[in-house]
Amino acid sequence: MKTIKVGLVGWGTVGSGVLKILKANGSLISRRLGAKLEVVRVADLDLDTPRSVKLPASRLTRDALSVARDPQVDILVELIGGLDPAEEIILAALKAGKAVVTANKAVLAVRGRRIFAAAARAGRPVFFEASVGGAIPVIKGLREGLAANRISSILGIVNGTTNYILSRMTSEGISLAEALEEAQKLGYAEPDPSLDLAGKDSAHKLVILASLAFGDWLEPRGILLEGIERISSEDILYTGELGYVIKLLAIAKASPGGLELRVHPTLLPRNHLLASVSGVLNAVYLEGDFSGPSMFYGRGAGAGPAASAVVADLMEAGQALNTGAGTGPGRLPSPQKLDRLPVGDIRCRHYLRVQAPDRPGVLARIASILADHDIGIASVIQRGRRKKGAVPVILMTHQAPEREMAAALRKIARVAAVKERPFRLRVED
Amino acid sequence: MKTIKVGLVGWGTVGSGVLKILKANGSLISRRLGAKLEVVRVADLDLDTPRSVKLPASRLTRDALSVARDPQVDILVELIGGLDPAEEIILAALKAGKAVVTANKAVLAVRGRRIFAAAARAGRPVFFEASVGGAIPVIKGLREGLAANRISSILGIVNGTTNYILSRMTSEGISLAEALEEAQKLGYAEPDPSLDLAGKDSAHKLVILASLAFGDWLEPRGILLEGIERISSEDILYTGELGYVIKLLAIAKASPGGLELRVHPTLLPRNHLLASVSGVLNAVYLEGDFSGPSMFYGRGAGAGPAASAVVADLMEAGQALNTGAGTGPGRLPSPQKLDRLPVGDIRCRHYLRVQAPDRPGVLARIASILADHDIGIASVIQRGRRKKGAVPVILMTHQAPEREMAAALRKIARVAAVKERPFRLRVED
Repeated sequence: MKTIKVGLVGWGTVGSGVLKILKANGSLISRRLGAKLEVVRVADLDLDTPRSVKLPASRLTRDALSVARDPQVDILVELIGGLDPAEEIILAALKAGKAVVTANKAVLAVRGRRIFAAAARAGRPVFFEASVGGAIPVIKGLREGLAANRISSILGIVNGTTNYILSRMTSEGISLAEALEEAQKLGYAEPDPSLDLAGKDSAHKLVILASLAFGDWLEPRGILLEGIERISSEDILYTGELGYVIKLLAIAKASPGGLELRVHPTLLPRNHLLASVSGVLNAVYLEGDFSGPSMFYGRGAGAGPAASAVVADLMEAGQALNTGAGTGPGRLPSPQKLDRLPVGDIRCRHYLRVQAPDRPGVLARIASILADHDIGIASVIQRGRRKKGAVPVILMTHQAPEREMAAALRKIARVAAVKERPFRLRVED
Repeated sequence: MKTIKVGLVGWGTVGSGVLKILKANGSLISRRLGAKLEVVRVADLDLDTPRSVKLPASRLTRDALSVARDPQVDILVELIGGLDPAEEIILAALKAGKAVVTANKAVLAVRGRRIFAAAARAGRPVFFEASVGGAIPVIKGLREGLAANRISSILGIVNGTTNYILSRMTSEGISLAEALEEAQKLGYAEPDPSLDLAGKDSAHKLVILASLAFGDWLEPRGILLEGIERISSEDILYTGELGYVIKLLAIAKASPGGLELRVHPTLLPRNHLLASVSGVLNAVYLEGDFSGPSMFYGRGAGAGPAASAVVADLMEAGQALNTGAGTGPGRLPSPQKLDRLPVGDIRCRHYLRVQAPDRPGVLARIASILADHDIGIASVIQRGRRKKGAVPVILMTHQAPEREMAAALRKIARVAAVKERPFRLRVED
């Protein structure tokens, strides 16, 4: 049986997971692949921390580039994350004729165009199933399983941290701060959770999904991006009463005016399949013109799930090497220029929460500002619950473009009686 | 750009769907594949019925084998369904050196071992994404996306007809006969729906999923098989009160005693993700040792979804031809002998409905029979609703092996006061 030699850069949680799978399921994997996967070199700056899987010292190095260029390595796995030196390592491996497997969403989202150009020049594939949705084979599903379809929309819950926080706020009625503390205790949130909360991690993943679906390698710039930081227990309560669940969604849509890309907390009808995706689980919902709706669901994070995807990629890269077909460029994104819909033209229904004193005229003032911007009101909830002398006014609007909504919100914020910056959430139904 | 030549056998709904996708999305598909897919030959016994996509008469024939053997054909697509002559056509195409794409679950389930042996001899691949779950790329997900995992269980809703019927019985409170009539009017059920209702279609699909997951090519023989025919509105009502939804599930589990394979209506807790899969939609829920739980969801039937999967397979087969790698054997199931758990040893919790007169002693008699077989009772519902002088007694048992349950059911049926054959459903929680 042929041995396919793997170089691993980054011996952290996921790297250890990869070694663990290859140990635990090695014979199963060899039987399925018809070849043996062997990790022959491992690079990490920290070689001192004890790991669960031991490796002979001769295979270890602190010099990542030496692994990327090692002539014996067939496939390089990049698991250090971030932009630098990850890009340099990937490019060096491609230049040295290796297939590359990476779990690094940031480097693909920000430097993807350069990486795939280099892969095309080198005639070598880059696999990245673990970069979105952990164990869920959504990359494969999108670019192979649904390859015959024109994709019209993608809705993804692709960040486990924020989904855990929103799920706990919904099920337990706790505040965002409390849910975040819980998530940190459980290891579901980083000590600095800002990349997750602000939706940046989701935006990176959206770039990857949308690039595959729509055929141009996109970038994070110009994505409508809002995080979950300002969501209160009250919002969870009111949206629940209206029949909605709040989820941080990564959304890509082929609208007639162009491609729209956005990441924001979103009101989803409670009976939407994505509404039942709770806790740290991830799911991606896709619409194809012939396939209809599809959903892929599973564990988006953690050593096991991410390593499951990395090893699947290793098997795919390895299969070509094993059959003697070599590793051709694989399924690179096909270049195609796409028009982007200007953010101001994106149309949504909106949920609006305004804190205002419970006195006549305030609602009339808000309604008249919305009317000035041609934004129709679908329903209003106004309750007697006082909060620092003000009550929340909840409005659901009809569809309106971002541009008009943003202008109306600025004006509402300037109304003297309005106590806090008005808070707005977008609706998908 | 290279042209890859396709021969199509079976010009029915799915065949027409394939031609439609290639027409509608042809340029997109060529760009993604880097080659053009062209249907050069089509065989069908009926060439007279008008179809939406027209083909020149020179490409049409009634002789399927001539297409399977045509030297210009690179990939043969078999869409006639059934065992014969489908098997002969597939084997002829493999022998003639062609890659094969099929949507035929029956021929794979019953004759799969022979077909894959022939494929291995010929060194040619057989793709069959459309055979299970229509557009849902679950075959690919299972044998590629989750390839690094030891799969411990599969739960699938893989038959749209029965899922539609059970969903309507649940949401509308109508009878099975009424729901079936509705399904037939909508084209969701065949005029003779018995293959679907009895679970045989699901069993074929289970064979395919389980063969890929557990590595031996299995067969339908020996699967514990029960259909939905005897489910009443009362069962829907009582199981609903107990917090369950009834779904026809195809189940494969790697138990310590061996592999268990079964198809039967199943009580699922209402918060299980599969419980929200309604109407004609399909979903497959999988557990891998590193991936954790995954679910694949989408349209399991219809021209568009099935054709979406067939064209995806054509693209996969075509990719190898396009890159000059040829079409090697692909990912054939790896041969591995598996122990099967005897049906009598399968352990489940059970829901039991017995029609008996509302008088003291009957419940005691049933309970004592169950006790004789060491079957514990978890809960009992007994209501005053008379039905022909009898009331339903509903029991939920603790886990018990099939063997004991079957023996107890036979004894309960012989209790003089029991008016109807007792009805039993299995529980997954």
